[in-house]
Amino acid sequence: MKFTKMHGNGNDFIVIEDFERRYLKNQENIAMELCHRNFGIGADGVLFVRNTDEADIEMVIINSDGSYAAMCGNGLRCFVKYVYEKDIVKADLINVKTGDGIKSVEIKGENGITQHIKVNMGNPSFDYKDIPLSENKTLIDYPIIIKNRNYNITTLRMGVPHTVIFGELKDFNIEDGKDIETNEIFKEGTNVNFCEIVNRNHIKVITWERGAGPTLACGTGNCASAFAAKTLNLVDNKILVEVQGGKLNILIENNHVFMIGNAEFICEGNILMDL
Amino acid sequence: MKFTKMHGNGNDFIVIEDFERRYLKNQENIAMELCHRNFGIGADGVLFVRNTDEADIEMVIINSDGSYAAMCGNGLRCFVKYVYEKDIVKADLINVKTGDGIKSVEIKGENGITQHIKVNMGNPSFDYKDIPLSENKTLIDYPIIIKNRNYNITTLRMGVPHTVIFGELKDFNIEDGKDIETNEIFKEGTNVNFCEIVNRNHIKVITWERGAGPTLACGTGNCASAFAAKTLNLVDNKILVEVQGGKLNILIENNHVFMIGNAEFICEGNILMDL
Repeated sequence: MKFTKMHGNGNDFIVIEDFERRYLKNQENIAMELCHRNFGIGADGVLFVRNTDEADIEMVIINSDGSYAAMCGNGLRCFVKYVYEKDIVKADLINVKTGDGIKSVEIKGENGITQHIKVNMGNPSFDYKDIPLSENKTLIDYPIIIKNRNYNITTLRMGVPHTVIFGELKDFNIEDGKDIETNEIFKEGTNVNFCEIVNRNHIKVITWERGAGPTLACGTGNCASAFAAKTLNLVDNKILVEVQGGKLNILIENNHVFMIGNAEFICEGNILMDL
Repeated sequence: MKFTKMHGNGNDFIVIEDFERRYLKNQENIAMELCHRNFGIGADGVLFVRNTDEADIEMVIINSDGSYAAMCGNGLRCFVKYVYEKDIVKADLINVKTGDGIKSVEIKGENGITQHIKVNMGNPSFDYKDIPLSENKTLIDYPIIIKNRNYNITTLRMGVPHTVIFGELKDFNIEDGKDIETNEIFKEGTNVNFCEIVNRNHIKVITWERGAGPTLACGTGNCASAFAAKTLNLVDNKILVEVQGGKLNILIENNHVFMIGNAEFICEGNILMDL
């Protein structure tokens, strides 16, 4: 079996070509074995490349624990760089089928190499039914006390539930994300983004990922943070987002969020372990 | 640059052929970048394969943090499997130059594939100058109080300093290793092995690695634990050692410790990241 390892801002993936769905039945085990950091290649997840009639190509993400991920912004940039540079889909606009619907991705290439990848991440929602919340409330700069600490939270659905809390990063303890994630108001939990406004075109974000903990980078979290900041009129519509694993640009147009960034190849070759 | 990823009981390494010492000057940076779990391939260390006039082949280990490791039992099994199966040194006895001297390794192969690899790990020492200790003492089943907890410790040099504590694994807290490691009696710190005697031919070990924390497997720690158990007459001279990452056989003959095990290939290919 051939593989390629890539990352988007430190969120790392193993790409496996599976046009004919040979690995469909066994994809959870394959992902768990390949993603193991010591016994396998090591990654956050596997991106399976599959043919589809509904779009140019299909991306299926299986996390390192074998669970299915509907969508991942960093994974999608890796995926699109892969199919573009490997001549699987050579176009400036690629429609990718994901578990969260078809994503339109614009590529700016130079000599066959992606210079940047622009993903329409869709239209976030503050509706309590979409997020979902256990109460009929709109959480925008909403004061709440969790484990005796006061927060002003802004919660939206950006692919998955995201809560954004503004302040200086040095004042936050990322581990508090766990208490917020598991608060009863969030029916399916929430990712938690601690966000510092540097200026009207620049924010810094640390994301606590639901069920996973601190991350080097979370694509949907970057989008959610920028959109929350725009909603509170703390930023303009072009925002540089700085995370531990790198940088991304976010563009907000007509309530849609566009993520602009790139991805990196790490290595490629043959898998020698028994699967 | 070509690479191969391997592991010995979950202790994982990237093997890089460097016969002409092209990477010598930059080996620390190369190891740190390749071993990064998210931005690189990911491993505990890099094994550089180099030519030498002093033995059949030379192994140089650089840890994931860029530091130099004189010797590593799990790494040596990976290294020997590599040079044997890649026809770099095709012999049943291979002498490998390491930072801890020349190690003689016996291979039992079948159709060019290693079935087991037997490494002479040398003669352990209880001498306080060798370990080294800050006091002129022999620590064999020696009662000591560290952070208000009572231990009976056995400390020896097996390549590096190792302390062995016997009992049932369920009664140990691996994190206590840190307090023991940093006790002032150990001039250069110590690895800490919590060891359970299953029967006279079978022990279970969890190793706290000096400066690194809990490990899936520690080759020298397995040897040290078996030798300490033999010294206290708790086991015979053939011992199966079970660790979280797998199993090893230890043979004790004429005060020498032989480690018998194997290693696994994970993947191989080309490095695509800039180094």
